[in-house]
Amino acid sequence: MEIPGEYFVRVILVILMLGSVLMSSSAAEPQQLNLMPMPVSVQMQTGQLVIDPSFSVGISGQSDAQLQRAVERFLNDLRRQTGMPPLDMKVTSPVQAKLMVHREHESKAVQEVGEDESYSLEISTAGAKLDAVTTLGIMRGLETFLQLVQTTSDGFAAPAITIHDKPRFPWRGLMIDVSRHFIPLDTLKRNLDGMAAVKLNVFHWHLSDNQGFRVESKKFPKLTEMGSDGLFYTQDEVRDLIAYAHDRGIRIVPEFDMPGHSTAWFVGYPELASGPGPYQIERKWGVFDPAMNPAEERTYKFLDSFIGEMANLFPDQYFHIGGDEVNGKEWDANPNIQMFVHAHGLKTNQDLQAYFNTRVQKIVSKHGKIMVGWDEILRPDLPKNIVVQSWRGQDSLAAAARQGYRGILSYGYYLDLMWPASRHYAVDPMGDGAANLTPEEKQRILGGEACMWSEYVSPENLDSRIWPRAAAVAERLWSSQDVTDVSSMYERLENVSRWLDWLGLTHNSSYGTMLRRIAGSNDISSLQTFTDVVEPVKDYTREEIATVEATSLSPLNRVIDAARPGSDTARHFADLVDALMGDQADSNAKQEVRTLLIRWRDNQANLQALETQSFLLREIVPLSRDLSAVAATGLQALDYLDRGERAPDAWATQQFALLAEAQKPKAQLLLMIVPSVQKLVEASSGQKAPSPQK
Amino acid sequence: MEIPGEYFVRVILVILMLGSVLMSSSAAEPQQLNLMPMPVSVQMQTGQLVIDPSFSVGISGQSDAQLQRAVERFLNDLRRQTGMPPLDMKVTSPVQAKLMVHREHESKAVQEVGEDESYSLEISTAGAKLDAVTTLGIMRGLETFLQLVQTTSDGFAAPAITIHDKPRFPWRGLMIDVSRHFIPLDTLKRNLDGMAAVKLNVFHWHLSDNQGFRVESKKFPKLTEMGSDGLFYTQDEVRDLIAYAHDRGIRIVPEFDMPGHSTAWFVGYPELASGPGPYQIERKWGVFDPAMNPAEERTYKFLDSFIGEMANLFPDQYFHIGGDEVNGKEWDANPNIQMFVHAHGLKTNQDLQAYFNTRVQKIVSKHGKIMVGWDEILRPDLPKNIVVQSWRGQDSLAAAARQGYRGILSYGYYLDLMWPASRHYAVDPMGDGAANLTPEEKQRILGGEACMWSEYVSPENLDSRIWPRAAAVAERLWSSQDVTDVSSMYERLENVSRWLDWLGLTHNSSYGTMLRRIAGSNDISSLQTFTDVVEPVKDYTREEIATVEATSLSPLNRVIDAARPGSDTARHFADLVDALMGDQADSNAKQEVRTLLIRWRDNQANLQALETQSFLLREIVPLSRDLSAVAATGLQALDYLDRGERAPDAWATQQFALLAEAQKPKAQLLLMIVPSVQKLVEASSGQKAPSPQK
Repeated sequence: MEIPGEYFVRVILVILMLGSVLMSSSAAEPQQLNLMPMPVSVQMQTGQLVIDPSFSVGISGQSDAQLQRAVERFLNDLRRQTGMPPLDMKVTSPVQAKLMVHREHESKAVQEVGEDESYSLEISTAGAKLDAVTTLGIMRGLETFLQLVQTTSDGFAAPAITIHDKPRFPWRGLMIDVSRHFIPLDTLKRNLDGMAAVKLNVFHWHLSDNQGFRVESKKFPKLTEMGSDGLFYTQDEVRDLIAYAHDRGIRIVPEFDMPGHSTAWFVGYPELASGPGPYQIERKWGVFDPAMNPAEERTYKFLDSFIGEMANLFPDQYFHIGGDEVNGKEWDANPNIQMFVHAHGLKTNQDLQAYFNTRVQKIVSKHGKIMVGWDEILRPDLPKNIVVQSWRGQDSLAAAARQGYRGILSYGYYLDLMWPASRHYAVDPMGDGAANLTPEEKQRILGGEACMWSEYVSPENLDSRIWPRAAAVAERLWSSQDVTDVSSMYERLENVSRWLDWLGLTHNSSYGTMLRRIAGSNDISSLQTFTDVVEPVKDYTREEIATVEATSLSPLNRVIDAARPGSDTARHFADLVDALMGDQADSNAKQEVRTLLIRWRDNQANLQALETQSFLLREIVPLSRDLSAVAATGLQALDYLDRGERAPDAWATQQFALLAEAQKPKAQLLLMIVPSVQKLVEASSGQKAPSPQK
Repeated sequence: MEIPGEYFVRVILVILMLGSVLMSSSAAEPQQLNLMPMPVSVQMQTGQLVIDPSFSVGISGQSDAQLQRAVERFLNDLRRQTGMPPLDMKVTSPVQAKLMVHREHESKAVQEVGEDESYSLEISTAGAKLDAVTTLGIMRGLETFLQLVQTTSDGFAAPAITIHDKPRFPWRGLMIDVSRHFIPLDTLKRNLDGMAAVKLNVFHWHLSDNQGFRVESKKFPKLTEMGSDGLFYTQDEVRDLIAYAHDRGIRIVPEFDMPGHSTAWFVGYPELASGPGPYQIERKWGVFDPAMNPAEERTYKFLDSFIGEMANLFPDQYFHIGGDEVNGKEWDANPNIQMFVHAHGLKTNQDLQAYFNTRVQKIVSKHGKIMVGWDEILRPDLPKNIVVQSWRGQDSLAAAARQGYRGILSYGYYLDLMWPASRHYAVDPMGDGAANLTPEEKQRILGGEACMWSEYVSPENLDSRIWPRAAAVAERLWSSQDVTDVSSMYERLENVSRWLDWLGLTHNSSYGTMLRRIAGSNDISSLQTFTDVVEPVKDYTREEIATVEATSLSPLNRVIDAARPGSDTARHFADLVDALMGDQADSNAKQEVRTLLIRWRDNQANLQALETQSFLLREIVPLSRDLSAVAATGLQALDYLDRGERAPDAWATQQFALLAEAQKPKAQLLLMIVPSVQKLVEASSGQKAPSPQK
């Protein structure tokens, strides 16, 4: 039986709802499949392949060093996953192998967009076969295999299964901004491991911005000497990371943002700028005035030399020049630039930027690269081979595609906005305006990129801002468009999240250490109970409601910096509340809801003991009181429901006011259980809560 | 008021018992001091020094690269501890510094035994001063400063305090055996960070044994080519680790065990052995027959060349030749060796080994090193400058000291025996036979070493076998002999343990990942409830009661491999039981005991759901049933006590039998709450449990 991915997901869900955790009736079968991203086609077979110390991998046909390293890495991951010693699980001759790996030819020395990543994986009780056209396909298939291995009653095992898989989009990226906060190499490496685990294939390295220039230039050493606070990557380190990424089937696309977002360049090279200078490394966030001078030939001479150097350092075919958010103020204020504008018959600053982009594009092209830039670069005078990265949305992307330009979507994938995974998951590069494109135009939409802007991230909490949510974006970009079941996504996301722990990602492990620092104590139970049900405010609200302006000097040690972008606890609570109010009132759910509400109601009393002890706790006291009050409201509503008694209108009105107050951000945090408790109050009173006032 | 360490500890305890967690009456003061090891002298002052982003360190007088790196590392640790960005907290001019660092002269290029490690740290509300004779002293003082920084109501702060400190012993070591299981470099590095944090100063690197030869020799490449399974350190890696250790004030003493424990050498160089060969890397544990041939000159020629190479690679003055556990069988069986024995008038194999040691000592000495070896090497014909490492105990050490030999104690510090921290803590190098030495003889006892033999450790669980217990040994070797309060030690040990999380040690973080693997599920609550109250069997019982012989190929993924050597939960439970039975019956304690017993009684029901799902869980079912039964017994005893009713004799007899059964190891695990529940049964029945039958 050949079944498409989405159908398969539904099958899993039905089985789960029936209360079984098994894919088949045999008790020896592993649990549900934790695959993420979901493959294109999955065909279950009977039985399972036991993975024991004798497990071995054979490579049939021709091999090369990259393939061998991929297999070795796979074996290391498998050893770590199973706790087998390094002496077990070997690369062996094809005849004896439990897993036969075969690929038709090696991958390109420099990984290309659209290079074949497809694979077929066939697992039977006797052994497994992994076939692919390229080494890239083998890497993807090996990750799938790892996700299939589970602890079962018979040992570690992978279920008998046939999978045919390939990505929906060729460009599946993660951007990390290392300018606003510097991110050390080892932190990037573990994030590349995470990317490979969920089949992302582009690391977009945002290397320069107003707040720092992060890569060594031998031609222009003052870029880092004066523009980085000493926090930058040497060229050797860059080469090291590129090799690391290449081994994992990940391209590295460097971005040097220009002509705006470039203050850090001007600290060492003020002659590049449009203003008089001098310039200093920017410590604040936002759009600033400094911009390169597009009217001076020396700017292009500099860029020619610089881009030439970087084009050599970064082997990828694509080169990102940013090109976003120029406010034009320095251009307006510079008489020479204004003369230049008139002399060239340009009308607006946009025209001037287009002129700049055209010049830069020629330089990028001269050095053998294809230019990538944000929406703003798009002007019809640029050649059709450039790529537009859209923060504006699918309509903007579609418009570009209609003009013949290729594009990638980042609108909807900004991880720094603290959206829940479900919201990112719902955004499709082919949605909205892109849905009506012709098949030929659709080909021009290459994929998307999750973006991690780093105003509020440090090496300590970066992972928890990226993971596990980036895995939901990875599935969107790899799996069929109709794989959209949110419950299934979350179910598998929680598994992926725990699975990423093995790779050394710290999104889970740093939570406790951060909370212990905040509490000033090893006993964090009440603080964690609180933090588990709050989320950082969304979008750009953190800035908008800040009482003290945040800068790159602000410590990121507050509860908001530890709190997770998506509260699993609040989400589970919402599911339980829905279950208890459903047609078949679920008495287990009701009991669990009550237990949770009691814990939350009593939590403030416990948290109080810590308050006097830690300055970092003080700001959450009002919200912690809200949590207790809201939980008490929920318990009262539950009592009314239990007694089958309609709650009085006056009571309901009072509770709605309390809930509306509790829904307001405090300490830049949101209390995520409020909507569910509101449902309980509505159900118990028959009243509807008033719509929130804007 | 100048107070010695032990008195100070008592003061803390009294304050703690009074229910206060503060060192003074001001609410702005930080919590209790988490110092470990306890300094020689601590004088509390009033107030505290707030640590904010403006915190800076100045170096007065002459500096050097090692000192600057130490200060930079300190600032990094402080940033990590407080969540400050890397732009904060600087090295600055002495005038502006919040912490002034001054040392008289640099440390030796090659760190020496007995080099001055003393320091004085004075912290006031205005600033802090750290003075030392050498850079080593500065390193120790900086670690003390880091331990003093706490989250307080006024921000991060260190209390105003005056500390004068120096180590009791000059040799405070940790040995890690990397032969039986190979331990990668990054794992060793994080353990060196842990050592530095608790002021240990010798890393004894057990580099060769029957199961593997782990360091590259350029002169004898087959040592690793054939004797390491490809798992070894290159010479560059060795140099890297030595530099890493040196920067942290840690000497590295290499050990190449000979003439026994040397099978791995013979795989590539069988001509070194006393038997006919061929040899294979040993996969099992124990004492084996192969030994070097002491009767052949080629053996000494080889060792001269090899030791010469290694003496160059390892700069430390000391060179460990092992010398333990030769069973003599290969010597007895080799007619040439027997001829040699007779020709040289030797009487026993011990004499032959002494001959070998004398020869080797001359080689070691020729290459500029001082020989170290285990007890067995000690024979009066060896020069007095050698050092004996004693696994036999203080009597053996004292005997050596009387003969003029220096020694270090490892008896009582074998971490692989799974003793609780308190048991290691009670062992003093000057205890037992050493107590009666003359002052001059006592000088010869240089200190001690915690030993981590690696039969049952992998990179995954190594940290949890070393930490936090090694910190208790570190305190024994650094602090005054009268610092012996076990409650205080445990209190501070739990803080140190959490504090080591910041350094990247995985003793806490790997617990959850290992349990999730065992459960085959993210929901490990019931498995953790179980594992929290069990400990691995002690001493060599794991081997003695194994049903399948363990080898280096055995996966280390069982509950015993995750379970902690010392159960904090069971220890706390024992304290609670003592409290509830004390003169002033503590009703809070009684309630807590009841809550815990109920959770344990009901746990098996929850664990059952996982049992069918994971082969790794099956073996713990009988012990999990014991836990439920024992907890039920405890609850019944509590009920009798509550009712003031004497439990019937027949009931007590029955419970004692049940407890005796539950005390027997199952799945090589011990249920640690049994003795406390037995106390409850005894108290409720007035009966004494029968003594266990041998």
